[in-house]
Amino acid sequence: MSDLESRLLDAILGIQAIDCHSHVPPESPHAQSLWDLLGYHYYTELAHSAGMPAESVDPGRSEGVRITEMVSRLDSISNTVQHSWLMEAARDLFGFRAERLTAQNWQELAKQVADAGRQKDRYKAVLAKSNLEKVFLTNRFDEDLAGVDRSVFVPCLRTDDLVFQLADPEVRRRLAAKAGAEITSTDSVRKAVQELMRYFVQYSAGSAAISLPPAFSPGAPDEAAAGRAMAQALKGKDLAADEADALAVFAFDAVAGACRQFQKPFQLMIGVIRNVYPAGVSGGRDLLSKQGSLAAYADLFRRYPDVDFTVSVLSPTWAHELATFAWIFPNVKPSGHWWYTNVPAHIEPDLRARLEAVPQVKLVGYYSDMYKVEFGLPKFNMYRRCLARVLAREFVEPGRMNESQALETARLLLRENPKRIFGV
Amino acid sequence: MSDLESRLLDAILGIQAIDCHSHVPPESPHAQSLWDLLGYHYYTELAHSAGMPAESVDPGRSEGVRITEMVSRLDSISNTVQHSWLMEAARDLFGFRAERLTAQNWQELAKQVADAGRQKDRYKAVLAKSNLEKVFLTNRFDEDLAGVDRSVFVPCLRTDDLVFQLADPEVRRRLAAKAGAEITSTDSVRKAVQELMRYFVQYSAGSAAISLPPAFSPGAPDEAAAGRAMAQALKGKDLAADEADALAVFAFDAVAGACRQFQKPFQLMIGVIRNVYPAGVSGGRDLLSKQGSLAAYADLFRRYPDVDFTVSVLSPTWAHELATFAWIFPNVKPSGHWWYTNVPAHIEPDLRARLEAVPQVKLVGYYSDMYKVEFGLPKFNMYRRCLARVLAREFVEPGRMNESQALETARLLLRENPKRIFGV
Amino acid sequence: MSDLESRLLDAILGIQAIDCHSHVPPESPHAQSLWDLLGYHYYTELAHSAGMPAESVDPGRSEGVRITEMVSRLDSISNTVQHSWLMEAARDLFGFRAERLTAQNWQELAKQVADAGRQKDRYKAVLAKSNLEKVFLTNRFDEDLAGVDRSVFVPCLRTDDLVFQLADPEVRRRLAAKAGAEITSTDSVRKAVQELMRYFVQYSAGSAAISLPPAFSPGAPDEAAAGRAMAQALKGKDLAADEADALAVFAFDAVAGACRQFQKPFQLMIGVIRNVYPAGVSGGRDLLSKQGSLAAYADLFRRYPDVDFTVSVLSPTWAHELATFAWIFPNVKPSGHWWYTNVPAHIEPDLRARLEAVPQVKLVGYYSDMYKVEFGLPKFNMYRRCLARVLAREFVEPGRMNESQALETARLLLRENPKRIFGV
Repeated sequence: MSDLESRLLDAILGIQAIDCHSHVPPESPHAQSLWDLLGYHYYTELAHSAGMPAESVDPGRSEGVRITEMVSRLDSISNTVQHSWLMEAARDLFGFRAERLTAQNWQELAKQVADAGRQKDRYKAVLAKSNLEKVFLTNRFDEDLAGVDRSVFVPCLRTDDLVFQLADPEVRRRLAAKAGAEITSTDSVRKAVQELMRYFVQYSAGSAAISLPPAFSPGAPDEAAAGRAMAQALKGKDLAADEADALAVFAFDAVAGACRQFQKPFQLMIGVIRNVYPAGVSGGRDLLSKQGSLAAYADLFRRYPDVDFTVSVLSPTWAHELATFAWIFPNVKPSGHWWYTNVPAHIEPDLRARLEAVPQVKLVGYYSDMYKVEFGLPKFNMYRRCLARVLAREFVEPGRMNESQALETARLLLRENPKRIFGV
Repeated sequence: MSDLESRLLDAILGIQAIDCHSHVPPESPHAQSLWDLLGYHYYTELAHSAGMPAESVDPGRSEGVRITEMVSRLDSISNTVQHSWLMEAARDLFGFRAERLTAQNWQELAKQVADAGRQKDRYKAVLAKSNLEKVFLTNRFDEDLAGVDRSVFVPCLRTDDLVFQLADPEVRRRLAAKAGAEITSTDSVRKAVQELMRYFVQYSAGSAAISLPPAFSPGAPDEAAAGRAMAQALKGKDLAADEADALAVFAFDAVAGACRQFQKPFQLMIGVIRNVYPAGVSGGRDLLSKQGSLAAYADLFRRYPDVDFTVSVLSPTWAHELATFAWIFPNVKPSGHWWYTNVPAHIEPDLRARLEAVPQVKLVGYYSDMYKVEFGLPKFNMYRRCLARVLAREFVEPGRMNESQALETARLLLRENPKRIFGV
Repeated sequence: MSDLESRLLDAILGIQAIDCHSHVPPESPHAQSLWDLLGYHYYTELAHSAGMPAESVDPGRSEGVRITEMVSRLDSISNTVQHSWLMEAARDLFGFRAERLTAQNWQELAKQVADAGRQKDRYKAVLAKSNLEKVFLTNRFDEDLAGVDRSVFVPCLRTDDLVFQLADPEVRRRLAAKAGAEITSTDSVRKAVQELMRYFVQYSAGSAAISLPPAFSPGAPDEAAAGRAMAQALKGKDLAADEADALAVFAFDAVAGACRQFQKPFQLMIGVIRNVYPAGVSGGRDLLSKQGSLAAYADLFRRYPDVDFTVSVLSPTWAHELATFAWIFPNVKPSGHWWYTNVPAHIEPDLRARLEAVPQVKLVGYYSDMYKVEFGLPKFNMYRRCLARVLAREFVEPGRMNESQALETARLLLRENPKRIFGV
């Protein structure tokens, strides 16, 4: 690493960041056992992909048995960046000094994790050490937010079920219960979604969020068709594909409308295909397709000029479209590096392209997508290293920025932009 | 920058280049006011994308007001490579020494631009300073070329209207007026296009050119279907989508035929979708889709083996297809780095891939696409830096070329290939 | 090159590799004349692409005439990585010292090649010098394997004809002759394919292999539809597109079934479109499309969990899908860098992405795809350099691996993984 890159990295590590997307459970945000780390789907899915039977980590087995199994598989995935997250968290958060986790030493780390997990407000110490000011949650639409520690966590309304599962009576029952009114029509859905958003905003929610399949096309809703589909669902009938689609496009529009009404951004995470590999481990069954195009979203971006869409994509083949749509549409804001693109091999070229062509005030640099706060440190540090590298090699060395300008840019991406865009 | 890269860059800056695609207006080629620079669509669209209302740069407002507005927005886009073009042009062409353009100093630059703009043949001095020998224009098909200064400019027949707007009576009227014969049939279109090409060739035109949507598929024309579509148009009827398509495929073929007849290349610029964001600023409303494939052009390349197609693509996802089609088809020649791909993040990997797999005699390195000659310097310099970097790091350092071979290659890309291919 | 990269490269050059895909003819594996090198399709197609008429290398002309022609064209393609393979082979295998091959010096190299070609078992010396332990062949399904020198070669059952040409009576005749039973039904095809695999396995075959068009979709076969298509073919009738498709999907499934039965991997090489440019030189008429998606193969990967699919793709736009499918599916193993992706510009980013996210025990690093053993050295050396570079810059320098771990990873990719996966 050059002196320049090293100086930039040091300074970037010192910027307190906002993490605008995670799956941290507010009632249990930090790890209480080593399994809370090793059971992260990245490790179980990679170990399974490398040959471990899915049954080996069945929740019916004891944690000790599962941990032993996983530890025995780590060599096969020790090249991956995900493995490096584990070792960095072990070292920096638990003082674990060995280079690899082995059958001989895992008990030591397990004790450290368990001991730390019992400390009061351990999650706050972890976030402080990680230099993260706020972490967004991804809350079920009917979640009770009263207990959320809003000194560090920011609620976020997850809308996947609302948009894609409205035909499910249980989803409608939950929605009616939360919104306080029966779901009998498209109009009642719109009102219920507004009620949800009103509730979330009361608890300082940062945004709505949804993950979308690559073929989704959010055009102007056909309210009549959606109404007919809703009527079918209310009669308990299965929906045909076009009916399900009409209902989803309508419900998606209802969420966008609520975002407009309450002036909240809508986090779009585009490209996932669910359950491609049903025989996989929990959390390791979804994949993606490179097909589709952000052009399908142009109509949405035009119809909601006053809603900020922070957009993530799951395939690097969408990255250029995202940067160019953000270059032209004021309300499109590239956000982080999602899931299967969250490796330096994809972060660095995408980050470079965004920095070269999108106004710097529009870039939401990174989010962790983590399930336990312990992964915020290694994931954000990975990103901070990518950012230092790209700024050093592509901006400061070629003379397009000086060091202080590069740090201003870094500060926008890590902190100022998410604060401003999400109203944190 | 390594000593090697620095030496290569110095030598590459010394190669007088050919700019085979621009939108320079021959009657007003250089900037006469600071607005001629700041009003470039890259700046207004990026500023708008970063929050500036489109109305702020309405032509109804005074230049001073528009400039003040734009200058106040530059911080938000100061990370972009487009911003670096502006500052490099200001520094190298106008002696402007400040690092950023601000409310305090823009009047100084404005005076320098206005003073320089009044110099006789200022554009020639700018092109000499930029080390550009010739700059291609993009002329309307009925443009009068008599006044073009052919000591530095090369006409080029733009055919977008001819191919996609033949159903418009005004286009047919202009075509008839220029070609000297009524447009009454497909046959009369073919003849008129030949007349246009004959006229352009008299004025030493370098090529025909067209920009194409990503879904365009230039198969063998169905002349009968095109004839029926033309008959409908002549009756003033709106064309159905398949009729419009048949007419466009036919008219495109007529242009390709004229290129064959007059032995001129056809510049294909593939991938733009027009008016995706109608609320944008002028010049900042078009985008792209990554969908489609160069495989749709294979039939064209087979049918016209004696026409050189210099091809640009608007999405990096098409870059590999372009390189491989150029690797196999003698008449396919990759050309430059167009518009939304014209940033180093995309230029460098695409350039490297072309240089590793396409015969060097086939590569048209770069063109500016500029609207005022002042942008030739920073745009070509950006490319020259990319070229020096790629040649140094991927060819000379790994021992695949020596320095003198690398410079021979650079000379082909910047100068010899466009001269030979376009007959300059 | 840094000291680190240089040390890694030295060590990587010392790893004896397995080449799991080539087209080396077992009866004539090494070059016996300079034309055996210069006639490689890469050189003739690139020279043709750069302007050489296809007729110039017509087999009807003498080798001397063809060589003279090709040598005169080398300058135009001297930038390409393929050209560097030629010069590296000439230098390292034939002691040729000149930097370029010219009209003045080619006779010298021709003599060296001819002399070496007459040495007994020359191919073994070439492979030893190239540090290749085993080279896979690509055998016709009815090839006699008795004469194959299995001390260095591994047979592999090529199934393109079986899957896509079953409607051809000649293919069915060859299949019946080899399998010893008439082809009268889908059932007889399944049995015949099993017989072929049984025969190949007797000769220590490493796998079955096939190249596939980008639009192929290997779902569960409709055996009845395939049977009807077979009945049409048996009557000598041409198949409609859907019939041909049903037959291909069925035959593909028959091969996958035989792989399961004999516990052999199936090499899938996805993305080629045949004969896109029929006027090209031999071997230089095929291209690709970026369209399609690996998602079309998910059903196959689910139905055959016990078959290893080693997968190559022909477009870099498929690379991320391949890495992510291998990240999730245990039976998907990324393999090498095929044909139009076999240049450092694509190898390096794809290799980096695979190493960052796919378990290292699943990666088949490289294969040569060569037609004469002389190209194993420069092709594998190119890959070894890419591997050293990526490991040094992206893994050891950033502290994610130490040197010894990096070499362990390299050893897996070049040697241990192909040995284990293919049972060599």
